Amino acid sequence: MIIVMKSSATTAQVDHVVARVKSLGFDTHLSVGEERTIIGIIGDERPVDDDAFSLMEGVEKTVRVLTKYKLASRDFHPQNTIVHIGTVAIGGNQVVALAGPCAIESESQIMAAAQAVKKAGASVIRAGAYKPRTSPYSFQGLGEEGLKLLAQARLATELPVVTEVMSSEQVDIVAKYTDAFQIGTRNMQNYNLLCAVGSTDKPVILKRGMMSKLEELLMSAEYILSRGNDQVILCERGIRTFETATRNTLDLSAVPVLKQLSHLPVIVDPSHAAGDWHYVPSLSLAAIAVGADGLLIEVHPDPEHALSDGAQSLTPERFSTLMNNVRAVAAAVGREVA
Amino acid sequence: MIIVMKSSATTAQVDHVVARVKSLGFDTHLSVGEERTIIGIIGDERPVDDDAFSLMEGVEKTVRVLTKYKLASRDFHPQNTIVHIGTVAIGGNQVVALAGPCAIESESQIMAAAQAVKKAGASVIRAGAYKPRTSPYSFQGLGEEGLKLLAQARLATELPVVTEVMSSEQVDIVAKYTDAFQIGTRNMQNYNLLCAVGSTDKPVILKRGMMSKLEELLMSAEYILSRGNDQVILCERGIRTFETATRNTLDLSAVPVLKQLSHLPVIVDPSHAAGDWHYVPSLSLAAIAVGADGLLIEVHPDPEHALSDGAQSLTPERFSTLMNNVRAVAAAVGREVA
Amino acid sequence: MIIVMKSSATTAQVDHVVARVKSLGFDTHLSVGEERTIIGIIGDERPVDDDAFSLMEGVEKTVRVLTKYKLASRDFHPQNTIVHIGTVAIGGNQVVALAGPCAIESESQIMAAAQAVKKAGASVIRAGAYKPRTSPYSFQGLGEEGLKLLAQARLATELPVVTEVMSSEQVDIVAKYTDAFQIGTRNMQNYNLLCAVGSTDKPVILKRGMMSKLEELLMSAEYILSRGNDQVILCERGIRTFETATRNTLDLSAVPVLKQLSHLPVIVDPSHAAGDWHYVPSLSLAAIAVGADGLLIEVHPDPEHALSDGAQSLTPERFSTLMNNVRAVAAAVGREVA
Amino acid sequence: MIIVMKSSATTAQVDHVVARVKSLGFDTHLSVGEERTIIGIIGDERPVDDDAFSLMEGVEKTVRVLTKYKLASRDFHPQNTIVHIGTVAIGGNQVVALAGPCAIESESQIMAAAQAVKKAGASVIRAGAYKPRTSPYSFQGLGEEGLKLLAQARLATELPVVTEVMSSEQVDIVAKYTDAFQIGTRNMQNYNLLCAVGSTDKPVILKRGMMSKLEELLMSAEYILSRGNDQVILCERGIRTFETATRNTLDLSAVPVLKQLSHLPVIVDPSHAAGDWHYVPSLSLAAIAVGADGLLIEVHPDPEHALSDGAQSLTPERFSTLMNNVRAVAAAVGREVA
Repeated sequence: MIIVMKSSATTAQVDHVVARVKSLGFDTHLSVGEERTIIGIIGDERPVDDDAFSLMEGVEKTVRVLTKYKLASRDFHPQNTIVHIGTVAIGGNQVVALAGPCAIESESQIMAAAQAVKKAGASVIRAGAYKPRTSPYSFQGLGEEGLKLLAQARLATELPVVTEVMSSEQVDIVAKYTDAFQIGTRNMQNYNLLCAVGSTDKPVILKRGMMSKLEELLMSAEYILSRGNDQVILCERGIRTFETATRNTLDLSAVPVLKQLSHLPVIVDPSHAAGDWHYVPSLSLAAIAVGADGLLIEVHPDPEHALSDGAQSLTPERFSTLMNNVRAVAAAVGREVA
Repeated sequence: MIIVMKSSATTAQVDHVVARVKSLGFDTHLSVGEERTIIGIIGDERPVDDDAFSLMEGVEKTVRVLTKYKLASRDFHPQNTIVHIGTVAIGGNQVVALAGPCAIESESQIMAAAQAVKKAGASVIRAGAYKPRTSPYSFQGLGEEGLKLLAQARLATELPVVTEVMSSEQVDIVAKYTDAFQIGTRNMQNYNLLCAVGSTDKPVILKRGMMSKLEELLMSAEYILSRGNDQVILCERGIRTFETATRNTLDLSAVPVLKQLSHLPVIVDPSHAAGDWHYVPSLSLAAIAVGADGLLIEVHPDPEHALSDGAQSLTPERFSTLMNNVRAVAAAVGREVA
Repeated sequence: MIIVMKSSATTAQVDHVVARVKSLGFDTHLSVGEERTIIGIIGDERPVDDDAFSLMEGVEKTVRVLTKYKLASRDFHPQNTIVHIGTVAIGGNQVVALAGPCAIESESQIMAAAQAVKKAGASVIRAGAYKPRTSPYSFQGLGEEGLKLLAQARLATELPVVTEVMSSEQVDIVAKYTDAFQIGTRNMQNYNLLCAVGSTDKPVILKRGMMSKLEELLMSAEYILSRGNDQVILCERGIRTFETATRNTLDLSAVPVLKQLSHLPVIVDPSHAAGDWHYVPSLSLAAIAVGADGLLIEVHPDPEHALSDGAQSLTPERFSTLMNNVRAVAAAVGREVA
Repeated sequence: MIIVMKSSATTAQVDHVVARVKSLGFDTHLSVGEERTIIGIIGDERPVDDDAFSLMEGVEKTVRVLTKYKLASRDFHPQNTIVHIGTVAIGGNQVVALAGPCAIESESQIMAAAQAVKKAGASVIRAGAYKPRTSPYSFQGLGEEGLKLLAQARLATELPVVTEVMSSEQVDIVAKYTDAFQIGTRNMQNYNLLCAVGSTDKPVILKRGMMSKLEELLMSAEYILSRGNDQVILCERGIRTFETATRNTLDLSAVPVLKQLSHLPVIVDPSHAAGDWHYVPSLSLAAIAVGADGLLIEVHPDPEHALSDGAQSLTPERFSTLMNNVRAVAAAVGREVA
């Protein structure tokens, strides 16, 4: 951490800051410039709060040198982490498709969707039993009944499944049925939930908060990792901006940035970002081209009658066509589809 | 809801949409323009999903006519709601100061803070026992031990207290000690938590998500109201924008907008928005001038040594000066301080 | 345009609005719902101001049905427009690379850059003589001297060139040397400049304002088109968001959205969006995969010593490698590189 | 400037960076930490480009210590600057109202508006003759004819006037009629225009770009100041965010932040920010409470029939009521209305 003193700072103020730094167990390094004095902190600054020095008299600002996360950082774990959902490896050379309906609605619906996405080349089935909805008057998911239907689809297709967990109380019940947890965008900073899944040994797909910086996404991953669960997959799903032509703005730069900062696998959810199925195929291809390890895509056997998110769901036919194109683009960038 | 058809829509497509609307129990109203046909839905559109029609062939877009919230709307409750925290009324002519430290750190700290803010004119003490922190390595609050210390401060000052609840499991324990719940910005869309506090009879201060539109804030209030708890206070605390000179951008327009859309009281938290105590006094005065019903302000007896958010905390002396200025501005806009 | 009346609107207020609509030469269509009356305007609403009715007593809001732009709209021009810069066609099946240094710095620099990008497969040379810089103390470009050097590079490589024009007074001088104008992100709504280039017959690359909605980009294109110049290329170059890991957030969804709304070609500038050359190759491949018609890429023979934007410039070697990968991805999506 | 080296940086890389710094005429200060080496640059870093070192091998990032602006900084000019428009002083203890219609539409309209705002207590008349409009099909202003009408209003009321200048070619003609230039939000980074008004001796009201950071606003002020014109007034007018309930989000924190960073006067335009006259009175009072030196408010004698921006214009009656309330709030914060 670097402490920049004001141009008007007195020697006494500089000394006071230096004394404080030393009292916290750090060495200091003083640099007296023409307009500013700068105090460097020598040692691991991570446990130090941003505010620790900014309030002191004569301080203009403080600048961190190190990232706040450690376990999630590539500095401390240079090679890629590979996460396994069932037998499916994510984070290696193969790109993976996780697909299925937004919500589990009925036995026939989830079975049809599961069979269709398997046939088209998906490796993991995704579907929600607990649905976070903006309105209390919208369909909220089937709950455990939905989880049981998902388990049926898992049995029939022999594909692993992933489903959303919305609160720490649900962790046990969801863990009984799923191969991996999904943490939704609104829960990226639900720290109780992060700690709860961090204490299990199931993989976690952690979606970026729609207004969260990538550094904050990595800090949330750090919560899970620091509890002992190292099976974390990061997921870009669009951020909130001023643009209203799409529901959110898919931030594909997040993929190379996260790959540089972290060793964790990165997948992309174009369905929620776009909010409109028309844009899902092209954005999926872009996600593969930019280096994503997988795609999380909504597929519904009858989008027009879906109970939630129909507008962003592909039909099985369109998903099947997309998978063919995904294979071509994956090959063009030296990868293959699982 | 209004359904705008594409210029290329066929008569069959229009008929198909009309039939769907009728199958959901609504009447329709058709308007055939030069370039577009428009289908109006007659009836209460609130239970209809945004996506219900947007996927159908020939549809260009759908536009809602009604707000999605009902109980939170001023249309359905024209007069102002007054919420009581203990004996303190919020939402009437008096403006109220809720003040105290970010986190409860020790008995001496909370007692000093509580006495100081009471003396300066605060009506409610605020302090956190459970702290949502971006980093797993930061101080996470004292938990129930902190709640007990808060109860002591309540007893000593005879002021009501408010403290944050972070998850639905904590609702019972927090309810034992507090006069009102605070839902933090990261939990505004934690629907399990909203339902849990909605099932109690304690007032709830609902902070706007830093990424949330005002309509979404009202939808989250609707979750609480729809569970039977009508004691909800809305709180503007800054939104995330591209500007980095302040931690968040305090959106003071939110106050008159919320007052127009809803009957619920609106308070403002300038401390978290600014992230720097220097800006808290002027923003507090602006909040009163713009029509807020109260202020939520961080005050710490020794900000320089605070375990969290020291940089945005006022000293008791500065808070006391601020309260004098608040009284003057409140009088200038025809209100008084409780 | 649809006018939604308040639930409290009186019959007299509705009549007053209807009368106003008719006085502007439109027919109306009235729909009386349970909670709201809705007035539809029949006719071409484009010349009507958004505010025309919103102030009238009893009006809750107005909703446009038609886009505000017409000449830029695909509705009025269903087939793709192909724009020619010199002999290079943009907007057809071939994808095109426009490459070169941010600023023209010297004869040796621009000649080296031009030869290098030609050799690697670029079809158009881009380089700036007039540079918009945030700081008055930064290098502002060589001006006409730079344009002359660019003309030399054009002669030597036989490739067409494109360069930025910053104000309407510069249009004549820039037109003497360039094959196409570039309008920068800060000038997307410099209407005097748009009108000036709209009155020429040179192609215009119109960059999206970093805080502009796609609808506004199309409105700015409409300014140029409405002056008689139909040779407009749209360029996505990143928008400003809260994320700071990249300089701006490249909005690749803009490509399929613009392609759906408009017939104009769309190219992508990953260099300015990322602000860091490390991310340029992967974002370039994503741009091709998502459907862009071309890439605008900064290449500098010696980025470390560039007078501007060195950090985001590729070396000729890296650009050459990238072009090979672009060819592979283009083939995977059924296109080829010009 | 501080250069943070990567943890993997070699001694040779550090030496190479140090040599580069010295070659630019600076001294260096080396700090070797446990995980990172940090190189401090000693001297005035302002002329150094951000990119100057970030590309070098082994460099992780660079951090500026000094602001990029100098003439606009309070460090170099501690006392407040007072700008005079005619005989009206802005930036002292008195707060000032600049009011009038968005656009000059006719002689009767501008004369009525001017007399009305004078009577209500405005000190300066504002009105536009050149209007930047999103659509080429909207009313674009009366041009010089409008300027002449404005001069008539000036003569009749004996109040100074301010009007917008949209491009450098217009500077001479506008200067003939106006007491101060206004630079609009879309032109805040129109550097040719900034240089042109910087070369005059008329005051300039510089509106913040709706997409611009406060630091960039100060850099644009620096352009004007560095040309020799020290009569610059900064104007906050709302920034673009994800919130759509108001047209833009008025960032009132900008006032105390700018006052801390700079010596220049700061005024607030609540009309354009809100886009709805209902919110203008309360936001105006908030602006005075937060410390603004003045208000820029749209007033139209007949908003319902205004040719532009009617929805955000106050009637003269509402403006008169507002001015009474402004006087009360100004007094409450120790100021008075001019």
